[in-house]
Amino acid sequence: MSKEIPYKIYLEEGEMPKAWYNLRADMKNKPAPLLNPGTKEPMKAEELEPVFCKELVKQELDNETAQIEIPEEIRSFYKMYRPSPVVRAYCLEKKLGTPAKIYYKFEGNNTSGSHKLNSAIAQAYYAKKQGLKGVTTETGAGQWGTALSMACAYFELDCKVYMVKVSYEQKPFRREVMRTYGASVTPSPSTETNIGKKILADHPGTTGSLGCAISEAVEVATSTEGYRYVLGSVLNQVLLHQSVIGLESKAALDKYDIHPDMIIGCAGGGSNLGGLIAPFMGEKLRGEADYRVIAVEPASCPSFTRGTYAYDFCDTGMVTPLAKMYTLGSGYIPAPNHAGGLRYHGMSSILSQLYADGYMEARSYKQTEVFEAAELFARSEGTLPAPESSHAIKAAIDEALKCKETGEEKTILFGLTGTGYFDLVAYEQFNNKTMEDYVPTDEEIAESVSHLPQV
Amino acid sequence: MSKEIPYKIYLEEGEMPKAWYNLRADMKNKPAPLLNPGTKEPMKAEELEPVFCKELVKQELDNETAQIEIPEEIRSFYKMYRPSPVVRAYCLEKKLGTPAKIYYKFEGNNTSGSHKLNSAIAQAYYAKKQGLKGVTTETGAGQWGTALSMACAYFELDCKVYMVKVSYEQKPFRREVMRTYGASVTPSPSTETNIGKKILADHPGTTGSLGCAISEAVEVATSTEGYRYVLGSVLNQVLLHQSVIGLESKAALDKYDIHPDMIIGCAGGGSNLGGLIAPFMGEKLRGEADYRVIAVEPASCPSFTRGTYAYDFCDTGMVTPLAKMYTLGSGYIPAPNHAGGLRYHGMSSILSQLYADGYMEARSYKQTEVFEAAELFARSEGTLPAPESSHAIKAAIDEALKCKETGEEKTILFGLTGTGYFDLVAYEQFNNKTMEDYVPTDEEIAESVSHLPQV
Repeated sequence: MSKEIPYKIYLEEGEMPKAWYNLRADMKNKPAPLLNPGTKEPMKAEELEPVFCKELVKQELDNETAQIEIPEEIRSFYKMYRPSPVVRAYCLEKKLGTPAKIYYKFEGNNTSGSHKLNSAIAQAYYAKKQGLKGVTTETGAGQWGTALSMACAYFELDCKVYMVKVSYEQKPFRREVMRTYGASVTPSPSTETNIGKKILADHPGTTGSLGCAISEAVEVATSTEGYRYVLGSVLNQVLLHQSVIGLESKAALDKYDIHPDMIIGCAGGGSNLGGLIAPFMGEKLRGEADYRVIAVEPASCPSFTRGTYAYDFCDTGMVTPLAKMYTLGSGYIPAPNHAGGLRYHGMSSILSQLYADGYMEARSYKQTEVFEAAELFARSEGTLPAPESSHAIKAAIDEALKCKETGEEKTILFGLTGTGYFDLVAYEQFNNKTMEDYVPTDEEIAESVSHLPQV
Repeated sequence: MSKEIPYKIYLEEGEMPKAWYNLRADMKNKPAPLLNPGTKEPMKAEELEPVFCKELVKQELDNETAQIEIPEEIRSFYKMYRPSPVVRAYCLEKKLGTPAKIYYKFEGNNTSGSHKLNSAIAQAYYAKKQGLKGVTTETGAGQWGTALSMACAYFELDCKVYMVKVSYEQKPFRREVMRTYGASVTPSPSTETNIGKKILADHPGTTGSLGCAISEAVEVATSTEGYRYVLGSVLNQVLLHQSVIGLESKAALDKYDIHPDMIIGCAGGGSNLGGLIAPFMGEKLRGEADYRVIAVEPASCPSFTRGTYAYDFCDTGMVTPLAKMYTLGSGYIPAPNHAGGLRYHGMSSILSQLYADGYMEARSYKQTEVFEAAELFARSEGTLPAPESSHAIKAAIDEALKCKETGEEKTILFGLTGTGYFDLVAYEQFNNKTMEDYVPTDEEIAESVSHLPQV
């Protein structure tokens, strides 16, 4: 440990990963397969291919291949904004007065403002390679839609984004970023789809929901020649692409012989956490090393900490396959929370299986305490963090303060998934002390999970 | 030229500059001194020290010392967000089909979103070192105010920002970033100052101006125990701090034996351009190397290309010293233009002298063509650029297209000063094709410069 640790550890271009790591290959208990909601049988490739790109379906179903090569074109794009740095939070450590060593992998230094671009570019690449004209997707807060718009601009693919109407109106800036990259952005529900028309007829004046936007995007993808649907989280393929986060992190830490005692990530659908922990969890599963892994979720949407491990629909509209996951029920409407990317009722099947098998811990925080952590981080480390990422910051700070009490020099790695530049309405509420904390009652959660599908 | 050039060239921490470079030391014709507007005599240190920090006054007046050490504390802060990369714009080159090699120094990867932080942290450091309680400043678009807020949070200094009222109301997000870092942000004109009260009495309902905000900030700094005023551009000291941009750029290019044929930067007050070109211009002044240097400004505020080289006030309110510069007249109100950071009537005295002596070229562009360049850049290189920076992009693209015609493999370096994440109202106008181009008439400019002070 004689080498001085710089503030930011960057890999050389030549040290960047050439293959994604498929964590499923090392899992003894594989994640449960997607089921056809009609037959309750595992979804076959040919059932998924009308919706998703062929190569992505293959990745979705592949539980065996540990190393999946990153195509050259994707690696070229990665080089534009990667490698992302592993940052030593020297200033935060000093502010806390902790003996702990805090590192974070910062994924926010790109225009999408988050890690979502890692999978967007992969999905756009496979769509282009398949000769498609374009892709459709939904977006709520807008991170995923922005990332996909950037990726489609690069490959000159058409990109149709269905944006939850209330976000479309309240987040015009996100919308304009997507338009600048050439995407068409439609407020959902729209009159462009049958399901949109039906919803508008049934619920005039509705401001939309993610479930509805998914349904519209899927309808357009499956009914338009040359289009497929893409999704930014939850799926196995997305966690595969996001493994680039963890692979880079591990390579950077290895260069300085740094072994994290714990790895902390925020968890919504699981794309960031699953990617960050992948190679570390691989070592843990193979018995080669041990790490504490901590998932952090909002108290308003606590799928790990208060959900049920069961098969459920991936969307509110119940048009998707069934996935086995920790879920609050696909009809669960999380109370208002500014960490929009964490307001998902379920959790990646891979992470759900690992959690069920005892390989991970989980905890939840209320949003005011999360923003307190965000403010402390911003003032000491400079970067204004995304509300989602700030859940991981809060947990890292709590663990560092525990070290201060015990005197232990633990090494903490957390994922700083993105920046908060498009979340300033939330910061304004925090600054004005008008932010509210919502926690669902046991009865609310029990009611919601009582509607889980019978499998 | 056998070494493969990576997409991004990063310096190692140990290769970062340990001293700023003071270009004035190598100028045969020194920049003209600031004059006392009453006596018309050069301002002395003791006249400037009630307004500015002592050490900064020293830097302002020092035309001789070439290397000025960067204090350790500032270098520590720099390490949190620097070195910034020199990026090879491979994807833009490909899109243009040019044989030119395009590089850009990207200063936007920090929460202030621009290069302004380089000087903000230096100015905050010297204020802290002098034992001050806080600093005051003005901000229009908000980049400088954000940078200063971050710097003051780091050194636990009080930060009072007077924000042009129309920006305060129309750019609430910028305001909230500053508040998150603990700054107090007051819409200007305010009732907190005598000058603010006077302006409000004379012009009820005014939405404010930068000139008024400067006057308020200076009044508060000079009338409050333990406060000084700080400024984000134009001044010699600011260009000195910003030399870190050019020093890093040159070190990065030197590592790969890259010699730029031309260096392009946007120019408002000159802080970015002056910093970017510093070490290259030093070589040029010493006759060691030659570079074309191109300043790019908005057609709506063309101080270099259509202004007069004369002594003028630095502010609209005429409370500051006189500076000799290319100016459109301190009463010049640029027509609406989204490149807020370039809407300044004058130009740094250093750059003005160099331009007068024929060491630099200048050109101007209209905003619609600038946004076309911005869109092309975003779609090929990923990053959504600031409107200010996009002036340099436009010039770089034009030069690269000339190379396409002639077949010349020129090497272009330009400054990408920042990101456009807080400029999406501008992008929205561009996307909706409602953006307008304004160019002042010769009569308007003649009228404005007819009011220059007699020296």
